[in-house]
Amino acid sequence: MRLTNFTDYALRILLYMAAHNDRLTTIAEIQQAFDVSKGHLMKIVHLLATEGYLHTVRGRSGGTRLGMKPEEINLGELVRLTEPDFLLVECLGHNSQCVITHSCKIPGPLNKAMDSFMETLDSYTLKDMMISQSSFGEALVQMFPQRGPEFLINVVET
Amino acid sequence: MRLTNFTDYALRILLYMAAHNDRLTTIAEIQQAFDVSKGHLMKIVHLLATEGYLHTVRGRSGGTRLGMKPEEINLGELVRLTEPDFLLVECLGHNSQCVITHSCKIPGPLNKAMDSFMETLDSYTLKDMMISQSSFGEALVQMFPQRGPEFLINVVET
Repeated sequence: MRLTNFTDYALRILLYMAAHNDRLTTIAEIQQAFDVSKGHLMKIVHLLATEGYLHTVRGRSGGTRLGMKPEEINLGELVRLTEPDFLLVECLGHNSQCVITHSCKIPGPLNKAMDSFMETLDSYTLKDMMISQSSFGEALVQMFPQRGPEFLINVVET
Repeated sequence: MRLTNFTDYALRILLYMAAHNDRLTTIAEIQQAFDVSKGHLMKIVHLLATEGYLHTVRGRSGGTRLGMKPEEINLGELVRLTEPDFLLVECLGHNSQCVITHSCKIPGPLNKAMDSFMETLDSYTLKDMMISQSSFGEALVQMFPQRGPEFLINVVET
């Protein structure tokens, strides 16, 4: 079982912004921190901004910060937005090729299990997962000691 | 979110055997019914037989039937056997490349949600999902009317 990378990175982006919400952050900065392709990050930031999770300021000194308080960002709602579907097996989709699709009882238990999964996520917000700006900085220094003082000063600034 | 095809087909195999447990069934028969590769089915049947879910009789007139009663086959236990892991995101694995792995709090809520998912599956057995031999037959006739009387007589026999 896997969540998509899209969901994984959406969570990382929000956690990064939550830790650095005293200023605007840029996609380039997040790209450096998580070593993820810029194109992929841009798609995720665009969706999160469209849905109000992020607030974007345009221009040369522009950037992005959270558009809601961390305690207003519900984990279940976020995952429903970022996951393409919750079809655990083929027969739960519209284009099922399985011969017993119409009489099959597999969907019942699987959908119940999925409901339990989502209900649990619904009980958490971003605030429950936040890590501090200094923890981010320390993690980055440890991970990328070779990146030089300019990068490190930028990311460990607290 | 997806379960693997391995789990999906393991469930289909067990449901087919449960519906036809008055006789031995063969991999060729299941392959015809579900249109899945023989190699894939053989791997799954081998694992299910090794773990006692199936009982295999060797020889020319051999075949396979359930090795347990349907009510003894717990859905949660089965899924734990057939899924390779339950690592919803990268940071839950041992080889995480994410920079904040050590300080990250994402795993807490995700593991709780996964526990809720599995607890729900634990409350079901194969018996809750069984469909009758005649339902299988009707589904197959509808799906493969072109396959001719020999195949159809075989699969709709009740």
